[in-house]
Amino acid sequence: MKVKLLTYTPHPIKAVFTAARSCYSASVPTQIWNEDEPKERMHSLIDKVIAAGHQSVLEHISLTFSIEGISRSCSHQLVRHRIASFSQQSQRHVRVEEGEWVVPPSIEANPSAEGIFQAALGQIYVAYRELIDLGVHPEDARYLLPNATKTNLVMTMNLRELYTVSGVRLCARAQWEIRQVFEAIREELVKVDDLRGFASHLQPICSHLGYCPEQKSCGLFPVKGSPSLSEEGEPSP
Amino acid sequence: MKVKLLTYTPHPIKAVFTAARSCYSASVPTQIWNEDEPKERMHSLIDKVIAAGHQSVLEHISLTFSIEGISRSCSHQLVRHRIASFSQQSQRHVRVEEGEWVVPPSIEANPSAEGIFQAALGQIYVAYRELIDLGVHPEDARYLLPNATKTNLVMTMNLRELYTVSGVRLCARAQWEIRQVFEAIREELVKVDDLRGFASHLQPICSHLGYCPEQKSCGLFPVKGSPSLSEEGEPSP
Amino acid sequence: MKVKLLTYTPHPIKAVFTAARSCYSASVPTQIWNEDEPKERMHSLIDKVIAAGHQSVLEHISLTFSIEGISRSCSHQLVRHRIASFSQQSQRHVRVEEGEWVVPPSIEANPSAEGIFQAALGQIYVAYRELIDLGVHPEDARYLLPNATKTNLVMTMNLRELYTVSGVRLCARAQWEIRQVFEAIREELVKVDDLRGFASHLQPICSHLGYCPEQKSCGLFPVKGSPSLSEEGEPSP
Amino acid sequence: MKVKLLTYTPHPIKAVFTAARSCYSASVPTQIWNEDEPKERMHSLIDKVIAAGHQSVLEHISLTFSIEGISRSCSHQLVRHRIASFSQQSQRHVRVEEGEWVVPPSIEANPSAEGIFQAALGQIYVAYRELIDLGVHPEDARYLLPNATKTNLVMTMNLRELYTVSGVRLCARAQWEIRQVFEAIREELVKVDDLRGFASHLQPICSHLGYCPEQKSCGLFPVKGSPSLSEEGEPSP
Repeated sequence: MKVKLLTYTPHPIKAVFTAARSCYSASVPTQIWNEDEPKERMHSLIDKVIAAGHQSVLEHISLTFSIEGISRSCSHQLVRHRIASFSQQSQRHVRVEEGEWVVPPSIEANPSAEGIFQAALGQIYVAYRELIDLGVHPEDARYLLPNATKTNLVMTMNLRELYTVSGVRLCARAQWEIRQVFEAIREELVKVDDLRGFASHLQPICSHLGYCPEQKSCGLFPVKGSPSLSEEGEPSP
Repeated sequence: MKVKLLTYTPHPIKAVFTAARSCYSASVPTQIWNEDEPKERMHSLIDKVIAAGHQSVLEHISLTFSIEGISRSCSHQLVRHRIASFSQQSQRHVRVEEGEWVVPPSIEANPSAEGIFQAALGQIYVAYRELIDLGVHPEDARYLLPNATKTNLVMTMNLRELYTVSGVRLCARAQWEIRQVFEAIREELVKVDDLRGFASHLQPICSHLGYCPEQKSCGLFPVKGSPSLSEEGEPSP
Repeated sequence: MKVKLLTYTPHPIKAVFTAARSCYSASVPTQIWNEDEPKERMHSLIDKVIAAGHQSVLEHISLTFSIEGISRSCSHQLVRHRIASFSQQSQRHVRVEEGEWVVPPSIEANPSAEGIFQAALGQIYVAYRELIDLGVHPEDARYLLPNATKTNLVMTMNLRELYTVSGVRLCARAQWEIRQVFEAIREELVKVDDLRGFASHLQPICSHLGYCPEQKSCGLFPVKGSPSLSEEGEPSP
Repeated sequence: MKVKLLTYTPHPIKAVFTAARSCYSASVPTQIWNEDEPKERMHSLIDKVIAAGHQSVLEHISLTFSIEGISRSCSHQLVRHRIASFSQQSQRHVRVEEGEWVVPPSIEANPSAEGIFQAALGQIYVAYRELIDLGVHPEDARYLLPNATKTNLVMTMNLRELYTVSGVRLCARAQWEIRQVFEAIREELVKVDDLRGFASHLQPICSHLGYCPEQKSCGLFPVKGSPSLSEEGEPSP
């Protein structure tokens, strides 16, 4: 899997700050935009606004990622997020080549399982090619292709939705592959000076809530109402 | 494949009529709702409003379908529609049983192809079961499962989005399986007295536009600007 | 102000239950729909699912309200919610009549203020009529009309979004008028047997979180991390 | 009114091209992104894709505008567009100052009307200030403020939605003020080399359809099915 931030809204701190200030200011947005406020002061206001749950100002920041070499299981989960834009490689039009498979770590770690997995993939690929050689259109031959088949997407998501989705997809209950996608997305943000301050908010939902909303916790935060929540106001990790 | 309309907004004609009239009337919506307007007159106003492209009033009608036994190829396409709600059977939690496959008609019609297809599916299923017997979690074993694997969804979509999506998915360029889903949806609407009048608007986009927007037409309507468009004001099918 | 539930998805408990069960069941949705599960058992599963934060199943329930006699200040706030459908009375096409104003309680309670308010409204109305008599089109004459002017909307919202929006609009920081709208919406749900169980979840966001996300609390719940949060696991109201 | 493009997705031609090519290519998006394709060739592919109605690739381009000094009538219309992000100056928190009004051209052109309009605005403003001096909170005093009151917004919209919304708001049936907003938006795009090629697609919907969908045309294009549509394949303006 490879995740790469292709492009994003320039001056993201200034853009969010301008949007936030415009709501409460007599000044017009172009004035606020042109003020020479230091980044630290802008980010400090932004952090307060977000902490208070007023995240809509984050929607002005758009981020476009290349997500390459994920399985079709993972892409099927990914495109369920509706406040985002996806352009995905089409199995109807692009033929799949041998060896383009994602292997789950639990299978890779188990030699017997991996043997079965790889042998079956080999058989599938032979049959897929035979169907195409018989004149079956790729869009129908692909009915044989496994979930493990690799796919690529261009994904654009705004920063508010990235917060929300990360809350769900960085949770230990999410499947390992989509969790890796959002960990890689967070690493991409960390690499950019003007996005690093936002990246720290990309966290599983428990770390926003201060408790685990599920019935059973992974251990990071206790479930709501459990005794360990009561000890020090802020639950321990 | 089985498509069944489970439930829908009651009094759909009255609901759309009330919404449409409320925009241009001094009367409050409850007054309009309680008027005893005959259905034909209400539908006649609705048809004019829709013909003029003011489709937002259709959003007040919500329809919930059970869509059963479609392939994961088809469900991956279906859930790309973002103005809709889906609850889909999870391959992470539900084990797949033997024989739960969708066979494309082009393969069914070709005995050699079908032989290859069915043999490969048999091998996949054996390997899937072996992985599970080895203790691999179903959410990882499923990486072997083919696109042909059947899945079920509950889908809720409003009537405006159903018009828009049908425009794309009833087009001859859509894949056969998702086209069947939307043909079956249209048939479900035809069965209900109060929805029949809306069902006739579920058509490929060319029949709304009067021309084919693609570079090459399926023959139903000529492409935009072609000579056959000019003969009689309204293009022939 | 008058709020009236015009229509809603029939069998809402069964619809949400079917959607929730379908995700984890080998049974197809029509089977689950046709099972004769008692409502209490269905609601008990639904409550668990919602408590765990998996609210997407609530999207299958659509509710259509008539909202009558609210101010244009309030409607301007209301239509900011984007996962909803609105058909609003048009000031471009419908002339406003005298006396169609909303008076804020803080003004009503203050005789000097109310005198000023009513006198100004009278002057505005006279000027509005004079403009129309001079041939100014209502869509331009209305530039004089105040925020207090009454308007009507038909609003359709799904139950998940109604939860989310109620979290914000039932908060003490929301303006009194839109808070009244969502209190009236909740009362409408309480009147319907099959919706009453859902109505109890329409609460300000603090009662979901267990703390106030704002910098200063109204007193209902303490702000996050404050000492009173630590005493008994669950904060006191 | 002042409209200013504050920021937008950098490399918009390359971003749309990469998204479009990725769907039909075996290459991964980062490869396509790094190819040194000339802009003219990229734009030529994009234009074909858009002409065929496949506009989703345009969603990867996000544009953020400052919209200053429009009336609250206009902002109420503007925020009805749901696939967009708005941060609007709050009348609850920012006091309105004298003279911050939008005057419709039809009133400005008519001295008697303008006299009535300005006099009424003066009376409103005096009453508004008196209410505030009496201790009425600005959020309630503003119930007196007219639709003409100026407001500012930061608006982010993706390029696909900008096409769709321009189709409606550049139509002669849209009100003059919001039409001016979208004309100004188009002019902002024309000023930027990499956006100019997209700006030409911001047109009233009739110019996309080749006919007027309304019952009565403004004259730009004939209504659907009218004789003048039939003469030369492509209707004359």
